[in-house]
Amino acid sequence: MIKVAISGVAGRMGREVLKTVLAAPDTELCAAIDIYNEGLDAGSLLGGENLGITITSNLAEALATSGAQVMVDFTNPRSVADNVITALNAGVRPVVGTTGMSEDDFARVSELAQKMHLGCIIAPNFAIGALLMIKFAAEAAKYFPNVEIIEKHHDQKLDAPSGTAIKTTEKILEQRGDFQQGLEMEEEKITGARGGKMPGGLRIHSVRLPGYVAHQEVIFGGVGQTLTIKHDSISRESFMPGVLTAIRAVLRLEGVVYGLENLLFE
Amino acid sequence: MIKVAISGVAGRMGREVLKTVLAAPDTELCAAIDIYNEGLDAGSLLGGENLGITITSNLAEALATSGAQVMVDFTNPRSVADNVITALNAGVRPVVGTTGMSEDDFARVSELAQKMHLGCIIAPNFAIGALLMIKFAAEAAKYFPNVEIIEKHHDQKLDAPSGTAIKTTEKILEQRGDFQQGLEMEEEKITGARGGKMPGGLRIHSVRLPGYVAHQEVIFGGVGQTLTIKHDSISRESFMPGVLTAIRAVLRLEGVVYGLENLLFE
Amino acid sequence: MIKVAISGVAGRMGREVLKTVLAAPDTELCAAIDIYNEGLDAGSLLGGENLGITITSNLAEALATSGAQVMVDFTNPRSVADNVITALNAGVRPVVGTTGMSEDDFARVSELAQKMHLGCIIAPNFAIGALLMIKFAAEAAKYFPNVEIIEKHHDQKLDAPSGTAIKTTEKILEQRGDFQQGLEMEEEKITGARGGKMPGGLRIHSVRLPGYVAHQEVIFGGVGQTLTIKHDSISRESFMPGVLTAIRAVLRLEGVVYGLENLLFE
Amino acid sequence: MIKVAISGVAGRMGREVLKTVLAAPDTELCAAIDIYNEGLDAGSLLGGENLGITITSNLAEALATSGAQVMVDFTNPRSVADNVITALNAGVRPVVGTTGMSEDDFARVSELAQKMHLGCIIAPNFAIGALLMIKFAAEAAKYFPNVEIIEKHHDQKLDAPSGTAIKTTEKILEQRGDFQQGLEMEEEKITGARGGKMPGGLRIHSVRLPGYVAHQEVIFGGVGQTLTIKHDSISRESFMPGVLTAIRAVLRLEGVVYGLENLLFE
Repeated sequence: MIKVAISGVAGRMGREVLKTVLAAPDTELCAAIDIYNEGLDAGSLLGGENLGITITSNLAEALATSGAQVMVDFTNPRSVADNVITALNAGVRPVVGTTGMSEDDFARVSELAQKMHLGCIIAPNFAIGALLMIKFAAEAAKYFPNVEIIEKHHDQKLDAPSGTAIKTTEKILEQRGDFQQGLEMEEEKITGARGGKMPGGLRIHSVRLPGYVAHQEVIFGGVGQTLTIKHDSISRESFMPGVLTAIRAVLRLEGVVYGLENLLFE
Repeated sequence: MIKVAISGVAGRMGREVLKTVLAAPDTELCAAIDIYNEGLDAGSLLGGENLGITITSNLAEALATSGAQVMVDFTNPRSVADNVITALNAGVRPVVGTTGMSEDDFARVSELAQKMHLGCIIAPNFAIGALLMIKFAAEAAKYFPNVEIIEKHHDQKLDAPSGTAIKTTEKILEQRGDFQQGLEMEEEKITGARGGKMPGGLRIHSVRLPGYVAHQEVIFGGVGQTLTIKHDSISRESFMPGVLTAIRAVLRLEGVVYGLENLLFE
Repeated sequence: MIKVAISGVAGRMGREVLKTVLAAPDTELCAAIDIYNEGLDAGSLLGGENLGITITSNLAEALATSGAQVMVDFTNPRSVADNVITALNAGVRPVVGTTGMSEDDFARVSELAQKMHLGCIIAPNFAIGALLMIKFAAEAAKYFPNVEIIEKHHDQKLDAPSGTAIKTTEKILEQRGDFQQGLEMEEEKITGARGGKMPGGLRIHSVRLPGYVAHQEVIFGGVGQTLTIKHDSISRESFMPGVLTAIRAVLRLEGVVYGLENLLFE
Repeated sequence: MIKVAISGVAGRMGREVLKTVLAAPDTELCAAIDIYNEGLDAGSLLGGENLGITITSNLAEALATSGAQVMVDFTNPRSVADNVITALNAGVRPVVGTTGMSEDDFARVSELAQKMHLGCIIAPNFAIGALLMIKFAAEAAKYFPNVEIIEKHHDQKLDAPSGTAIKTTEKILEQRGDFQQGLEMEEEKITGARGGKMPGGLRIHSVRLPGYVAHQEVIFGGVGQTLTIKHDSISRESFMPGVLTAIRAVLRLEGVVYGLENLLFE
């Protein structure tokens, strides 16, 4: 059994990780860390029975006394770097879903992980389906240089396009080279109708409607045919197989791996 | 058998109409008019055997001598009004797919059709599926005011958004009233990502790729659900059932009907 | 404010109705009935603060003492008929989402509602999007007789095809008459590949996969074109606008209305 | 310029190849072979001007006198093996889209190609998009073992499921191992609703409607997410980039390559 400490356990992602660690046959919860709900039993977060693990805000102590092998961190940009360094210093391997570490933080963490001979996985996206979509899209672009992306999210999302759409575009552009798509004489009768224009003329279209969660399709057009790669995510649970894969893999690693795709596909 | 004259028979739509008129059990070709291919047998347009009908550029004469009951016109904006007036004066009922008649032309044609007690159908879109999509979209908007439209066309289309998308938007706006959709604080990190903004905040997204012909989906979002109405057209043949419906219906009409939807759905 | 009693408040649908009644500007909770969680404050069901309404298993008493105008019932087939009769006798209008009433029950309820001059709404499906899909499908079938249905559900669903797919088929068949679709010579190399065969040759295809909730598309094929009507439901919340519509409408009715579509569309 | 002879030039695929060879900057037509339209100029097949190449039924002579480097063959199962052997004996490299060669034929052809030090490409499917779909599907199956396939074709297709769907299934099964999908207790209320059952419980659903040409989607389901890989082909033109790739590649090969995927992706 892999002993897992969850940092940020009371948050929405933290609770999902808690369920996952409890359900998997080869993982067990050894510590629950959060600045909220301190003193309560971790089981209360799921509205269920007591687990015998009390939520604490003291990460260093929790890691020192619990025998944790892996720390999963879903906290916030301000605390993530400190948490990761605390974990590594305690001989605990971090699996990090929190975004927002600076390059400096990243360098410090990399160095420390190497020095401690410990694995560390930092991943902005744990949805394996989304990572496969990006991988396939990059590969398809070699054969079908004409591409557009439609991403659809719930209507409370503030920014457009999504980070996943931008990442997908970057990977496509790396593969297709200097190709320039689109009709020069084209006329937009309503400004913006043709979407957001990325380098090489690739267009991203961002739909925002209630009833959506997180969806993206990458469409490749060729003469007489189209190839579409589509990912639909409807709940946070979709990230959990990726988190579990990382928990298992981090034990065998040394140093930092950034991006779950580098773990899965290579 | 309904005797049909085809004006603009050598064009791409004209040839489809020719096939349709020859194949339908209750229609027959009586005249073939075009300024191109004059003097050839109409059958040569389909690469097949002679039909015994010679292509002529003289519409008035062709209508006068052929016993035509209906004239189908797919020509161009410059000649359509003259053709329709010539037909009505000859006692022949026009079925018109050519766009671009002015309001003045339209008024003259309406008056003449009334005076001659003849039916006349003018329709910018003969694809029954597209007309149903617009009808259903307008109706759904009463229950789901949050809507976005994605239309996809081949990459040689010059204008965006498509006429069908604009028409759909107009019909939706008529039904949903003053509703304003979209998040005020929303931020476009890439200009145009959120599509073309129509009144009421409705967005149209225009995709242009090889491998597409003419496609549109209208997406209605509600809490926890979406309703999508989608039309895919992959060939000119898709207009032919609508043309045939109009040929049959125009015999029973008096005066001008504009828009096949007014014939089909009311 | 419309005073609403919720019968089956501790169930999964009951809790959603509770949230809805608390959130709507014109409804308020006056009683919470369930055989589970008796004696707790209804607010505990949402993990939130107390509402001052205690869950009780005594429906008759709760209705008599709370001034309820409407009772929403999401219980089970064994108790629904009794609950509805109890409500009508107490002068309370039922809005019923529970399925499984017998024809006898239905007759008794109808008679009682008439006698009491009270409205009563019984609806197997409160998702307005699904009802619109069925309505549009029936209408499209007049113009496009060739239809197939694909429905997709989570992989724990026991029966195939779904009730919605069967209901959609019935409505389509009513409209398209004796039409027989499909190729007689067709050969299934793998039994079942062509789906479930309904009267008139209409096929239903049932997909079952994790990651789906409840989805259906009805596809109409014509020469060179297809028209698709698609409904995607990803949470129980999608039923709530329909429940709220029924709560408001039942006050103005007399007698039983079966099917929310008869309230919405006519 | 690569000198190309087209065998079966008067067929539907042959005419597309003719257009392609004439349009590409690095290929030229040197011979046109067919048992139909013998004696006519090849240009007449496209309804255009003369090309100075007369259609002949004598393949051996045409190859001997035309300086052909590559022969493209889209004929029929009865003549394809003889054509390929004739070509190889004449020192001409075959690119073969005709299906139906026996294993014996295949062995003979392989041996002869090796002996002559000539390349030969035999491919049942030249649509690069379809080949990418199959490749991606096989790869995704490693991460998402729950899969169903929906394929959609025009309503005149005789067999179900399609060859592409069966091929896709085979490739998926190779990757996902012994996994068994589907709910054991599941009940089909309409026989066939759950589709055609393949090994491992994978289901194929075959939709047949007018308005479709050749479409397939492979859907992978995971908790909270789905990944869909979709290919839509609407014309024979979609095969031409693959044919052109083969024409160019066959010059550099020695021996037979079966399946364009082995040329493209490895």
